[in-house]
Amino acid sequence: MIGIDRIIENALLEDIHTGDITTQAVVPEKRSARAQLIAKESMVLAGIDVAARVFVLVNPEVVFSARFPEGALLSAGDVIADITGDAASLLQAERVALNLLQRMCGIATLTARYKQAVAGTGAKVVDTRKTTPGLRQLEKYAVRIGGGNNHRSGLYDAVLIKENHITAAGGLSVAVERARAFVPHTMKIEVETETLDQVAEALSAGADIIMLDNMDLEMMRRAVTLIAGRSLTEASGGVSLETIAGIAATGVDIISVGALTHSARAMDISMLLGE
Amino acid sequence: MIGIDRIIENALLEDIHTGDITTQAVVPEKRSARAQLIAKESMVLAGIDVAARVFVLVNPEVVFSARFPEGALLSAGDVIADITGDAASLLQAERVALNLLQRMCGIATLTARYKQAVAGTGAKVVDTRKTTPGLRQLEKYAVRIGGGNNHRSGLYDAVLIKENHITAAGGLSVAVERARAFVPHTMKIEVETETLDQVAEALSAGADIIMLDNMDLEMMRRAVTLIAGRSLTEASGGVSLETIAGIAATGVDIISVGALTHSARAMDISMLLGE
Amino acid sequence: MIGIDRIIENALLEDIHTGDITTQAVVPEKRSARAQLIAKESMVLAGIDVAARVFVLVNPEVVFSARFPEGALLSAGDVIADITGDAASLLQAERVALNLLQRMCGIATLTARYKQAVAGTGAKVVDTRKTTPGLRQLEKYAVRIGGGNNHRSGLYDAVLIKENHITAAGGLSVAVERARAFVPHTMKIEVETETLDQVAEALSAGADIIMLDNMDLEMMRRAVTLIAGRSLTEASGGVSLETIAGIAATGVDIISVGALTHSARAMDISMLLGE
Amino acid sequence: MIGIDRIIENALLEDIHTGDITTQAVVPEKRSARAQLIAKESMVLAGIDVAARVFVLVNPEVVFSARFPEGALLSAGDVIADITGDAASLLQAERVALNLLQRMCGIATLTARYKQAVAGTGAKVVDTRKTTPGLRQLEKYAVRIGGGNNHRSGLYDAVLIKENHITAAGGLSVAVERARAFVPHTMKIEVETETLDQVAEALSAGADIIMLDNMDLEMMRRAVTLIAGRSLTEASGGVSLETIAGIAATGVDIISVGALTHSARAMDISMLLGE
Amino acid sequence: MIGIDRIIENALLEDIHTGDITTQAVVPEKRSARAQLIAKESMVLAGIDVAARVFVLVNPEVVFSARFPEGALLSAGDVIADITGDAASLLQAERVALNLLQRMCGIATLTARYKQAVAGTGAKVVDTRKTTPGLRQLEKYAVRIGGGNNHRSGLYDAVLIKENHITAAGGLSVAVERARAFVPHTMKIEVETETLDQVAEALSAGADIIMLDNMDLEMMRRAVTLIAGRSLTEASGGVSLETIAGIAATGVDIISVGALTHSARAMDISMLLGE
Amino acid sequence: MIGIDRIIENALLEDIHTGDITTQAVVPEKRSARAQLIAKESMVLAGIDVAARVFVLVNPEVVFSARFPEGALLSAGDVIADITGDAASLLQAERVALNLLQRMCGIATLTARYKQAVAGTGAKVVDTRKTTPGLRQLEKYAVRIGGGNNHRSGLYDAVLIKENHITAAGGLSVAVERARAFVPHTMKIEVETETLDQVAEALSAGADIIMLDNMDLEMMRRAVTLIAGRSLTEASGGVSLETIAGIAATGVDIISVGALTHSARAMDISMLLGE
Repeated sequence: MIGIDRIIENALLEDIHTGDITTQAVVPEKRSARAQLIAKESMVLAGIDVAARVFVLVNPEVVFSARFPEGALLSAGDVIADITGDAASLLQAERVALNLLQRMCGIATLTARYKQAVAGTGAKVVDTRKTTPGLRQLEKYAVRIGGGNNHRSGLYDAVLIKENHITAAGGLSVAVERARAFVPHTMKIEVETETLDQVAEALSAGADIIMLDNMDLEMMRRAVTLIAGRSLTEASGGVSLETIAGIAATGVDIISVGALTHSARAMDISMLLGE
Repeated sequence: MIGIDRIIENALLEDIHTGDITTQAVVPEKRSARAQLIAKESMVLAGIDVAARVFVLVNPEVVFSARFPEGALLSAGDVIADITGDAASLLQAERVALNLLQRMCGIATLTARYKQAVAGTGAKVVDTRKTTPGLRQLEKYAVRIGGGNNHRSGLYDAVLIKENHITAAGGLSVAVERARAFVPHTMKIEVETETLDQVAEALSAGADIIMLDNMDLEMMRRAVTLIAGRSLTEASGGVSLETIAGIAATGVDIISVGALTHSARAMDISMLLGE
Repeated sequence: MIGIDRIIENALLEDIHTGDITTQAVVPEKRSARAQLIAKESMVLAGIDVAARVFVLVNPEVVFSARFPEGALLSAGDVIADITGDAASLLQAERVALNLLQRMCGIATLTARYKQAVAGTGAKVVDTRKTTPGLRQLEKYAVRIGGGNNHRSGLYDAVLIKENHITAAGGLSVAVERARAFVPHTMKIEVETETLDQVAEALSAGADIIMLDNMDLEMMRRAVTLIAGRSLTEASGGVSLETIAGIAATGVDIISVGALTHSARAMDISMLLGE
Repeated sequence: MIGIDRIIENALLEDIHTGDITTQAVVPEKRSARAQLIAKESMVLAGIDVAARVFVLVNPEVVFSARFPEGALLSAGDVIADITGDAASLLQAERVALNLLQRMCGIATLTARYKQAVAGTGAKVVDTRKTTPGLRQLEKYAVRIGGGNNHRSGLYDAVLIKENHITAAGGLSVAVERARAFVPHTMKIEVETETLDQVAEALSAGADIIMLDNMDLEMMRRAVTLIAGRSLTEASGGVSLETIAGIAATGVDIISVGALTHSARAMDISMLLGE
Repeated sequence: MIGIDRIIENALLEDIHTGDITTQAVVPEKRSARAQLIAKESMVLAGIDVAARVFVLVNPEVVFSARFPEGALLSAGDVIADITGDAASLLQAERVALNLLQRMCGIATLTARYKQAVAGTGAKVVDTRKTTPGLRQLEKYAVRIGGGNNHRSGLYDAVLIKENHITAAGGLSVAVERARAFVPHTMKIEVETETLDQVAEALSAGADIIMLDNMDLEMMRRAVTLIAGRSLTEASGGVSLETIAGIAATGVDIISVGALTHSARAMDISMLLGE
Repeated sequence: MIGIDRIIENALLEDIHTGDITTQAVVPEKRSARAQLIAKESMVLAGIDVAARVFVLVNPEVVFSARFPEGALLSAGDVIADITGDAASLLQAERVALNLLQRMCGIATLTARYKQAVAGTGAKVVDTRKTTPGLRQLEKYAVRIGGGNNHRSGLYDAVLIKENHITAAGGLSVAVERARAFVPHTMKIEVETETLDQVAEALSAGADIIMLDNMDLEMMRRAVTLIAGRSLTEASGGVSLETIAGIAATGVDIISVGALTHSARAMDISMLLGE
């Protein structure tokens, strides 16, 4: 949790900085309070442990009790969690906790919709590196909670040979060869292709994963047929809730969706404070 | 720029971490390249200096030339910037630069749409604290570029007395009084109200700004009439592109919109790399 | 407390660094001890929670019991706090705790003297940005404990238009106008003036606060009369314990005093260790 | 300079944080300016390189030209340095640069006065660990510029066996013995004594330095005579500008003065900005 | 280089901290000098860019010219690099640069010896996670320079199912299945086995890599035969320069060697300084 | 422990980063386990508190019970510690704890061998600055546990005038003089010498410690005779387990050995996990 703690501490410093002056001025010290987190719309719950951690880092004596587990499908009005402790602490943690939780639930909920759209096919829905700078770990976690899978975490933990790499290397096959010689044996080699000729070359070069980038459905189907299970196939580009079912029907193994993280809407959650 | 540099450095470490293994394996060293950032849809440009800084922090010898100033209205296909330098450096900076730029343009573009919806009224459109943890400074900057104004930066630089504070203090007037005695004389005192009685009490307590929270249009109009310019008025709650014009028509001075930052969609921008 | 903890941790690392070698060499492990913090002169107590936190961060098992609340007026010889725990931990925390506490008490005590000098007038005594780099938050807190008020925390949380800004903007009125268009509506606009003409211009430009900078008493009186309550007035420059009563008598609302933080003498406090 | 840079960067973040809003609102971009640092009273100059570094860290293109070297004796009205560059950058660096420079000059100037008071004797004037948390390195540097010498930097780089250590160890001699066995051979062993009996014991235990703590002049003289050059002698406690000459006359080698750093007044320096 | 810069800056702070007092006391300012790095024994060069970076971070004006490229085979007496610049800067950078360079050369040299011992076989020599805390990235780089390959960077970038995981999961097959469902499709699944039965189970579970842990040569040969190229094979445990050739002869694909990083001896390199 | 905690946290982040994916995928949540640390060869135990701290920082609820104190002489097969707690936490802490512990035990064990080699002489065995960047504090601690003593911690806490300093200063005597005037009175002055003439000059300059650098045994004996106890003597250069007894026999006070830290082999320790 050390990495997560640093994210939360920085978020708290960003918001509270030199002090919550309204609370300091107005709220008597040592007043205890009770609060609830309430879902204002239906959603997939993701990030409840992170939200809890925000309160605890503000004040270790706050007690945070979640009523639902991660991944639960919530309805509008559901009480997500009960929180008790020092009133000022609850007020100071509120916004950071909600900002993180609303975003994570938004991503999980959107992922679940994409996942549902491909139900009945074997296609995995995966995220991309199009995440919020500083929050990638949390966002990729939310994708998993929503039923999706993760693509690589960054440039360091997987090989993805794109057009630009192929050009710079002087050819697809040589690029695959260099990658295989260089990277840990634990990593597969993925190659981006845009034409069937490139698919064929990637296949003969021994690519473990072939990305079918911005292909139309017809070409994608032919690529899948050509590959015939000899490598994993990943569809990429132009994926939306409208198009994903058609893409899945081509038989690709994996569909990567940037929108899961770069364009998810925050879910509506609020904190009600009583005494 | 020290604060911004730290955000960018952390984002780069998040993405590159121990190294861009694909580029290390595949791209020959000391190969120079040229790249362009391309707008793939119309948008308000925001964050071009931040994007430039990403490339420079990866490699100080990269040259980044923007073709448009901040706030420019871009059309699909516009070349935003030309970048030249070491090919590996361009590839390593690409994703972080785009993740920041796409988000900032998304916020500026959405803000401009809200701003346009209230054109002809005197209403200011302002943001909230519902920002991405760690990126608040950049997001609030993007709101300004889009024609909006900023609300407070955090809990530390303004007073906003909410329902919970009033309850804890034992009354609205006493809360205002305590705040005035406590906080710097440079800050105004804002009070959240939900009824006309509260508006009247806030007014007589000398609140500098009265937030009209989740009021319907009729009540809002009556509140504005009641206040009669003796304090600033801020509408909050339930604001969308559909409702904002009606809200502005009530004569409020300021309308705060959480969606500007918590639900803006990333704009579509890509980097094309040549040689 | 995250921000404060970082200040304390850095202070401890500065002092202890790779280890308290004298204690490691000389003091047997697991020896418990009792200590007292003693005021060696009369003073206003400020920073007792910070001092306590130093001991706890060195060793969470140390028990620190304050005998006086913040703001208490102490006499020479008063025992401020009782501390019990591991002897080595007490010795390692001692200097950092005292360095912070002595400085904070010094500021609070000096502030109280200034405050006393204006007793009977309505003038507020406020601090400036002339604080110790890295300790501003603690020093401004000590000013409040001493009965003073805070001016802005930094360049980011308030507008203060000075001579240089006016020159750069091309005039006082245009500077005020630009500021009002730019900054959050939660902030007042303060303008520095040196002549009555400038006072008049600031007033007509709608400045919320007018700083009367380095004016003699006669000019200050005339400025206060001219402003007639239409904006707040702040006297600045040449303020000392000798001059402040005369300044307050001019009727200004606020008097800012750099000396509160840049020239306060550390109060004499020592730690006595028994067994 | 990495350590110093971190101090300055944190100070800048403390003051500027999310931005100098007055300057952003009011000062046109890309306006260049010239500024001067002016001494408003006589002082010993210390910290000019640190002040210069503040400007450079805000904006590497600022040119800072010092007119005096470190240690120079300045008169009121002296121009200390000329600075040219982007106006906004100068305004943003001003306060942090001055806060550091004024403090360092204050310490150097006070040290010089103490040093002068012992002129003609062989006594060294040294500082203590009673420094500002976070700024010890800069403050001890200023002491050296003022003609003083440094005592240890912290608990980690020298042995100072105090009363509490002696008690915990069960005797002065055993404490010295343990220290000698434990610490690097590069360090001398200093022991605090309050009576002539302790002095005699420290001497026979082979202490390299004997601190004469809070002794009256008569006892101090007898201690110096007793020691007779067989170890260094350090006077401590109750040292002021009034008492130090008498202390030096006892023949002690070293006099440590907490006031050098804990109670130095900031020197009056201001920045004038032209165009 | 941001990650590497942080490692170097921390190493410099560790060594220089508040200042190189010998140099400050003894060496005149602004004295320039020339230095050479000399190999005192034969070795594989690794880390020359890192060594250069240390000098540049101490002082950007230092000029560092390497005479050999990474991976060069050096003989005793070879001049590795010429360095010119401020004498004090060279002295301050020396130890940190050498500490890093000597260690990296030691690892590369030891790796080359292991690599040589398996020459003529197809076996790859790879490192482990038994690296120096804080320096893993540099050490794994040195392994590559020495002709080895890298295993995973940490717990986050590859799956390695060990005995303990199998026990906790309730069986090898279920563990493989869970891992495949959970982790990015870019990662292969590696399973540790100690018996031929486990090898068979791992094979039928579809493990991409089968680790043969602490097997004797006979069992290893039979495991390789059993697997027959259907998954990669990795030998682990009990690998030394004496045993590795025999292990490679069994036909395993990969041999992992903890000693490459946890027990490499520092190469003897010194810096000679002239004027 | 703040400094140590930062080392451990960085090591954990290096290894775990975004998560232990194998454990997350495979190990059921909330499964508790018991583990033991086992010595696989004979060694001197050093770093057991550091290892314990790794587990506690991963999960404060883990219970770590050491069976031996620091400095204990362990035999192969000895159980060093029992650990109980959440299985996933034990697996995540394992490698970092072992990497630190194995290295520290390696240093302590090697130091003990050197110390044993000089048994019966009065010579102290001390370390150097040839330590692992980032781990110096831990490595120097391990040297002490192994029966050695520490030389200086860095460039900041002791004076060591080397050949290069003497050249730059224009002579040995002037260098000693400058150092004595500059550095705290708590530090001794050490001078490196390579000839008997230099020894004589260092002696007459009043050096507190004379380093006999790379002298043969005959010259070293004559140097010791010449110095005759008037300063401490330190042998340096060419020290190995084979040569150290002869060096000690010359009568030097101190022998510094770089190999203690730069070339110690990691001790073989493993963690066994049960349920």
